Amino acid sequence: MTTTMTLTALPDFPLVREGDDLGHLIQEGLGRAGVDLVDGDVIVVAQKVVSKAEGRRLNLAEVEPSEEARSLARTAGKDPRMMEVVLRESRRVLRAEREVVIVEHRLGFVCANAGVDHSNVDGEDGWMLLLPENPDASAARLRRQLETWSGTRLGVLIIDSHGRAWRMGVVGVAIGVSGFPALVDRRGERDLFGYRLRVTQIGLADEIAAGASALMGQADEGRPVVHVRGLPYPLREGSLAELLRPADQDLFR
Amino acid sequence: MTTTMTLTALPDFPLVREGDDLGHLIQEGLGRAGVDLVDGDVIVVAQKVVSKAEGRRLNLAEVEPSEEARSLARTAGKDPRMMEVVLRESRRVLRAEREVVIVEHRLGFVCANAGVDHSNVDGEDGWMLLLPENPDASAARLRRQLETWSGTRLGVLIIDSHGRAWRMGVVGVAIGVSGFPALVDRRGERDLFGYRLRVTQIGLADEIAAGASALMGQADEGRPVVHVRGLPYPLREGSLAELLRPADQDLFR
Repeated sequence: MTTTMTLTALPDFPLVREGDDLGHLIQEGLGRAGVDLVDGDVIVVAQKVVSKAEGRRLNLAEVEPSEEARSLARTAGKDPRMMEVVLRESRRVLRAEREVVIVEHRLGFVCANAGVDHSNVDGEDGWMLLLPENPDASAARLRRQLETWSGTRLGVLIIDSHGRAWRMGVVGVAIGVSGFPALVDRRGERDLFGYRLRVTQIGLADEIAAGASALMGQADEGRPVVHVRGLPYPLREGSLAELLRPADQDLFR
Repeated sequence: MTTTMTLTALPDFPLVREGDDLGHLIQEGLGRAGVDLVDGDVIVVAQKVVSKAEGRRLNLAEVEPSEEARSLARTAGKDPRMMEVVLRESRRVLRAEREVVIVEHRLGFVCANAGVDHSNVDGEDGWMLLLPENPDASAARLRRQLETWSGTRLGVLIIDSHGRAWRMGVVGVAIGVSGFPALVDRRGERDLFGYRLRVTQIGLADEIAAGASALMGQADEGRPVVHVRGLPYPLREGSLAELLRPADQDLFR
């Protein structure tokens, strides 16, 4: 059987502002793309538009940096107010040196700058964009809205681009999951020859996040939502937690 | 404009044996899938079938473990002969403890067990399968063969599944690259508002490897080759080296 997966970036997605109904914007985008949702489809959404719709921006002028933030800012050569927000969004700093601050985010994953985007928010200086308060909940809300509208069973991923240990370049990873098998556990299954499978847990949500991210380019460019059809796994309930390696099982933290 | 990327796993791919003409098998698979190659298409191939075609298997009985390998085997609770092969395939061991051996592979990337597969080779016990000698060269050979056959300009990726720091589950990553922009460098480019892009280097080969890997499931299941159409970047010459973070720029090694 030929197995095909199709990823479609919703065309001409509008700029998203605080309070926008992102689910409705996605419905309109699906219409422009000529996509009628069917059971098993997956919607992949860039973190940036979720954060914007949820009003997760913060004005630098309103932030008073702590002494710890000032110290981190000196180490990293960054704005102390931004470092204050990074610290508030983090459980702990794993590495800090010139231009690089790697943290364990309060949501449990490891990333640079706690996912706080300082470079540009809607073309205005002086603002930072934070990750959604609870990306799993954001994904669940979008899913409910889109499922109710379409009468289908869907998966929703909210993704960001993360750098990695050992390898160059960022790749898309899931930071919010609803109705999607984030981790596929194949322990105990057998291969064609009856041998136990070597690879036993697949980071499926991150694999789909990465593929969709390639199509988005960057959310900045107006392709922040990707529709996926033909996922070769059944959908189920799922969450970001499946993808988080416990610190005590992590040899590189 | 609607941007669509389609990934198609070539159906009913046969078991690959040493000496098989993998390029020809891919041609036949494309035929079965009803795919006529066009300029810009990408062929993603699981490492396992490349290694098999290239005869990269080794009989455990032919391996004499060194003292270092015996020591590593004691630490990891693994076969000393396998550890001998892992050491031969590696520059150095980064971490070793019960059931886990993470190395810097001779090819430059970081992975578990130097990519050596001991679990099963063609259903026979006592064999190990090594990574291709030079995956970039393997990718280039396949690319030449498929380009000549089809008269098109293609990209070829050879991929494996790697575990990661910080996150659970393995994901597909590129270990061999030909005719494909492994890393997309956007430094200096501007976004919609004229601001410099926050994310400046995209690990595109790894993003496509991950998406294709989701479709393969596991090479063991007979979907080791995926055809990609609609990559939203132009092809160019490329190599694995682009994806390798130099050890002195790596805070987690």
